[in-house]
Amino acid sequence: MIVVYVKKSSAATYKLTLHYDGTPFKGWQRQGELPTVQLFLEKAIRKCWEKEHIIHGSGRTDTGVHAFGQVAHFKAEKKFDTKTLVRALNNNLPPEIRVLKAQENSEKFHARFSAKGKEYLYRVVNHEILPPFEINRAWHVPKKLDLKEIRKACRYLAGKHDFASFTSNPGYARHTTVRHLRSIKIKKVGSVIEFRFRGDGFLYRMVRNLMGALIKVGLSRLTPDDIQKILRQKSRQSAPNTAPAYGLYLVKVFY
Amino acid sequence: MIVVYVKKSSAATYKLTLHYDGTPFKGWQRQGELPTVQLFLEKAIRKCWEKEHIIHGSGRTDTGVHAFGQVAHFKAEKKFDTKTLVRALNNNLPPEIRVLKAQENSEKFHARFSAKGKEYLYRVVNHEILPPFEINRAWHVPKKLDLKEIRKACRYLAGKHDFASFTSNPGYARHTTVRHLRSIKIKKVGSVIEFRFRGDGFLYRMVRNLMGALIKVGLSRLTPDDIQKILRQKSRQSAPNTAPAYGLYLVKVFY
Repeated sequence: MIVVYVKKSSAATYKLTLHYDGTPFKGWQRQGELPTVQLFLEKAIRKCWEKEHIIHGSGRTDTGVHAFGQVAHFKAEKKFDTKTLVRALNNNLPPEIRVLKAQENSEKFHARFSAKGKEYLYRVVNHEILPPFEINRAWHVPKKLDLKEIRKACRYLAGKHDFASFTSNPGYARHTTVRHLRSIKIKKVGSVIEFRFRGDGFLYRMVRNLMGALIKVGLSRLTPDDIQKILRQKSRQSAPNTAPAYGLYLVKVFY
Repeated sequence: MIVVYVKKSSAATYKLTLHYDGTPFKGWQRQGELPTVQLFLEKAIRKCWEKEHIIHGSGRTDTGVHAFGQVAHFKAEKKFDTKTLVRALNNNLPPEIRVLKAQENSEKFHARFSAKGKEYLYRVVNHEILPPFEINRAWHVPKKLDLKEIRKACRYLAGKHDFASFTSNPGYARHTTVRHLRSIKIKKVGSVIEFRFRGDGFLYRMVRNLMGALIKVGLSRLTPDDIQKILRQKSRQSAPNTAPAYGLYLVKVFY
């Protein structure tokens, strides 16, 4: 007779949805004791469980980049009521990081590897004067942008392409620099222009590099056709500068 | 023969419309070299005219109070093109203070004494979690507010009344503590509740004291009838606490 012991585990995988103002942090990724989002989350979790846990994000965000819906997960031995967990974590986090939601998830769930897509927002203030409340929250472009030309350039960028020209480090890419950029939506609200990028995945600094190029088109320093050429060259050397980090928001991670 | 010399003056009175984030300042009013809005404006004007000028605001704002449309004026000997003036002042101001507009005005114009009314906005976040971008920009009230009861209380407050119960220092009032509160408008946008107060004038800390009382009504710690009683008592002793400064915005000054 063979007895199979099924170990009933009380362990759980928690999925957290996070909102943060990236201004005071050195990005997502833990770097020793530097003030990073990951460090503060791991410290807050330690307070709740009295034990070290490693938290995994859906992806890194750079210094200054914001999030409305970053997703992270961690595995814990002891179970917690999720509402209590949200409250306990928020009580132990700086106010610039808020846990919006905690959910128990399947053991197989991984914030990064289970992600099917992401939505990013990039905010531009297109007016001579930058309103004080937009400091660190939007890229200030004082000269009037030609949105018609920008939209034309977007038509070349949307779709499945090799975005090697728009990543700051192709070596970070998994297997390939081909990504499917499903849509770029542009909306003007007063003097704020919102650019929303949806895709199955994004290369390192891809949105900021795309924005750097699109703003050059809006200022008539590049044509929409130049964007197509840059895309085809598959080399970062040919592409314009990276847009500032503080205009970028990770809005949603799709699973 | 009597010769009358009419001295042709090149002096001008400039009216400035200002936007500021009150967080880094010790309020409007100059206090030596402390970081106040008035100090930075006077320093910026000094850079343009290479001479001291006194700037007069429509009224003081306390430490932490914001402005979308504060108005100030100053008299200068030399004339400036107003567009150039806006640019020159903004170049010499911290980014948290922006001059939106400069206009040449009649010599009789006085930012404070010519004012016929004001509009203030008070922002409340009514949700368990305070979004990071609302830090220092709204009062965080986590418990659900009863807006119906708040509206009832507002009906007692709107109109011409002696607001002595709602000023932190009746001695600051000019002649009387009677003011005409023309309207209180309440609008809920997501979890943000916006309260807009319009009146011919406001006593020292009047809006924040009204807000302190209204939130107590919303939390069922006071009834709308209590508000009427407090108003009738004409004494600050009977009124509840002052709401935090960082929820308050001076929106517009009417002339």
